[in-house]
Amino acid sequence: MDLDTRDRPIAILHTDSPLCRSEGFTAHARIRLESAHDDVIAELFQTGSGLLELDEIGLSDAAWKKLQVRDGDHVGASHPRPLESVRHVRGKVYGEAFSPNALKAIMRDVVKGRYDEIELAMFLTAIAARALDDEELVALTGAMVEVGERLAWDKPVLMDKHCVGGLPGNRTTPLVVAIVAANGLVIPKTSSRAITSPAGTADTMEMLAPVNLDLGSMRRVVEAEGGCVVWGGSVRLSPVDDMLIRVARVMDLDAEAQLVASVLSKKVAAGATHLVLDLPVGDTAKVRSENEAKTLAARLQATASAFGLKTRTLMTDGRQPVGRGIGPALEAHDVLAVLQGEEHQPLDLRDRSVRLAAELLELAGTAEPGRGRSLAEETLSSGAAWRKFKAICEAQGGLRTPPVARGREPVSAKCAGIVGRFDNRRLGRVAKLAGAPAAPAAGVELHVHLGDRVEAGEPLYTIHAETRGELEYAHEFAGNNGDIIRLDPES
Amino acid sequence: MDLDTRDRPIAILHTDSPLCRSEGFTAHARIRLESAHDDVIAELFQTGSGLLELDEIGLSDAAWKKLQVRDGDHVGASHPRPLESVRHVRGKVYGEAFSPNALKAIMRDVVKGRYDEIELAMFLTAIAARALDDEELVALTGAMVEVGERLAWDKPVLMDKHCVGGLPGNRTTPLVVAIVAANGLVIPKTSSRAITSPAGTADTMEMLAPVNLDLGSMRRVVEAEGGCVVWGGSVRLSPVDDMLIRVARVMDLDAEAQLVASVLSKKVAAGATHLVLDLPVGDTAKVRSENEAKTLAARLQATASAFGLKTRTLMTDGRQPVGRGIGPALEAHDVLAVLQGEEHQPLDLRDRSVRLAAELLELAGTAEPGRGRSLAEETLSSGAAWRKFKAICEAQGGLRTPPVARGREPVSAKCAGIVGRFDNRRLGRVAKLAGAPAAPAAGVELHVHLGDRVEAGEPLYTIHAETRGELEYAHEFAGNNGDIIRLDPES
Repeated sequence: MDLDTRDRPIAILHTDSPLCRSEGFTAHARIRLESAHDDVIAELFQTGSGLLELDEIGLSDAAWKKLQVRDGDHVGASHPRPLESVRHVRGKVYGEAFSPNALKAIMRDVVKGRYDEIELAMFLTAIAARALDDEELVALTGAMVEVGERLAWDKPVLMDKHCVGGLPGNRTTPLVVAIVAANGLVIPKTSSRAITSPAGTADTMEMLAPVNLDLGSMRRVVEAEGGCVVWGGSVRLSPVDDMLIRVARVMDLDAEAQLVASVLSKKVAAGATHLVLDLPVGDTAKVRSENEAKTLAARLQATASAFGLKTRTLMTDGRQPVGRGIGPALEAHDVLAVLQGEEHQPLDLRDRSVRLAAELLELAGTAEPGRGRSLAEETLSSGAAWRKFKAICEAQGGLRTPPVARGREPVSAKCAGIVGRFDNRRLGRVAKLAGAPAAPAAGVELHVHLGDRVEAGEPLYTIHAETRGELEYAHEFAGNNGDIIRLDPES
Repeated sequence: MDLDTRDRPIAILHTDSPLCRSEGFTAHARIRLESAHDDVIAELFQTGSGLLELDEIGLSDAAWKKLQVRDGDHVGASHPRPLESVRHVRGKVYGEAFSPNALKAIMRDVVKGRYDEIELAMFLTAIAARALDDEELVALTGAMVEVGERLAWDKPVLMDKHCVGGLPGNRTTPLVVAIVAANGLVIPKTSSRAITSPAGTADTMEMLAPVNLDLGSMRRVVEAEGGCVVWGGSVRLSPVDDMLIRVARVMDLDAEAQLVASVLSKKVAAGATHLVLDLPVGDTAKVRSENEAKTLAARLQATASAFGLKTRTLMTDGRQPVGRGIGPALEAHDVLAVLQGEEHQPLDLRDRSVRLAAELLELAGTAEPGRGRSLAEETLSSGAAWRKFKAICEAQGGLRTPPVARGREPVSAKCAGIVGRFDNRRLGRVAKLAGAPAAPAAGVELHVHLGDRVEAGEPLYTIHAETRGELEYAHEFAGNNGDIIRLDPES
């Protein structure tokens, strides 16, 4: 039907089709479809129009792809059998513990698309209401790894880093990879594109080099340069994670277990041996308080160690965006400024990258304890990191110059004051309204940080956009949300 | 789009529409639509085909109806705001109690279609994992009443009855209404049609008289005859109940609170003052054990009394179908046989109806305690119940003669033995495969009951169908499921 429903399999039958009549299929029911190649459980809708013949079935792209069919192929339809594994989810709802085999069975059904939104929501609610113990959490992480692909490397030590919960502009990954690889360590980094944010690390990196590499090309880059920053989308590491995240986002439920399993299953599947986790803490960040961060860090550490993954967690300041740019190209300019040691480089981005790289260097034994920061700092200031980064970009397909947007519009302070608070979420929304990440040069360029003193009329940030309409749209939203950057009176 | 999705609002936009681009709407996201009349939160799918122009939006029937639009009307689209009331659901997940206001806010959002499947599943899982206390259960029931319509009657005493959980053929309602109304009590009964079963009470009653009455006609029938049996679909009593039930059925989760609130909210909204509840207990019935039934009965009683509803619960045998017929017309024939006092009338159906009517007669004070059964029995055997039933049918639009199916095929015992167990669920499936309830004469006619001794080759039941195909289809399923009626060796 050329119907994009993302990962949701949908089938449409004619209301008067013999199949609906004989099987008693009703609209909004679930139906099991079977082709010569595969099977899928789809949501059934019905139509009475000429859209479909009585003996035809319409499929969404996701169902079409899963069944691997072509026009004219036969598809069998039946009532889906109750899923055995849902029994374990029901058990959990009533307080029973998950066995490792139960979690394996659940994840196998999830990855095959047999759990619909209702069952995924039930699973996620159950693990939020009945917190998983350490054993269950390790089993869940293992089960998520098992149902996806795994990368195997013939290296004993593989570095990785991850930031839990978005902070606009926190683009440390290209810098950390450059510093760590320049010191002879191996760091094959896969990153994601933006889902709800104005830019993902893969979007930003794409401004500097190609990132759509297949596994073979990625291996060649890592073989040659020790590091890479590529888009993880072509490698199906922990594929259930994406399904769970989409539903969890709608529920806005903090299932700690889901977060831990989500992060670590991808790292285990990627073959990492040493990991540093960045936990930004702030009232509009994912982790809202230091206590929350401590609990989360402890669970991450405990679970990671069960997989032999040496892990350090770093609590960082999550109260304000990092660097100046928000949006793929604007963030890429920040990264370049730090690598090239520019006079006006964003020092907060530099400092965060140095701290994270330092932890990795010490964790791997490349730097003595307490000497990681100076080594990382030196790697940047000597130009070694910049040389390594250029080499990585060339290996990925060629260094690029990030674009610059045509339209700009400043947003100014209405009164004088001290910058007291950032609403990171709404600031991200301004960047998205301006066109990021689809328009890569679009976004927000910040001129102030917490504690800065501004005069009335002084620009707080500048909106960058490619079209007049987007520029106006973002500017109007910014005008209606004057408190995105709160100015406090001087004390 | 002429797309039947039942109650689920769906919107389709062209992938390249300016709206998707500027707002960043992605497939399988939620979108808020607004017409001149109403608003709705819909699930958004996308298409790249010629199905839609770039400035068009396609709507499912449910979204179309809710927005009250016509071709060419303008519809506004935006990102939905987070639902305030979901905060309370999240609180419940983590163990907080619901306040009455929280439950009101949730039910108001549910009835407006603002909760999608994910959020409904989260709510139902939360109340299964964190059982509601008595106060919360009363508040939930009250909130479900508040968001629907209520019937007001100028009578001080209004009788009602309800059967919790389906048992094939358990068509006591027409009999109970006739007996109770013949004794001068008022019993305005609304019943439902089949959703997953081969017949609902409204489907069976429709074989005997029209049931699609509006509220005014229903009132006139009750005014004239003291009772009625009409389809409840045209009256929106507790409309959220249907939404919750559909999701709860997929989850197959026994949320006791949901069941209690579901049953009682409809009775309170219908204006009932006296209620008898039939709780069939059996291993393939909804209530599986006597203990389960006792707990459920206590919760029903406690909650009903909070609404001033005088209630009795009756545990009944739920191990086998009631009467002989399964399917609208076949069950109607059973009802008529009892009313007319036929020689071969199904005595189990008669007995159950008498017991339920007796409770109502005693509850209302029409019969002295302990004298209800004999009064109900007398009302049947004197012909008074049959006369009242005919009068009710005439008032509803005219007494009808139930149809008889053209095709019949017996299913016989493969060996001799004693009837030891019925699988009510799969027996219902045979009736549905034969065409029930859409083909009203179709279904199953039982020849045996528990404890009966049968010889090899003796018919256990006869399948009734209107078409050759359905007859064969049902017969084949019956053949492959020889243990639907289990025969035990004689001891």
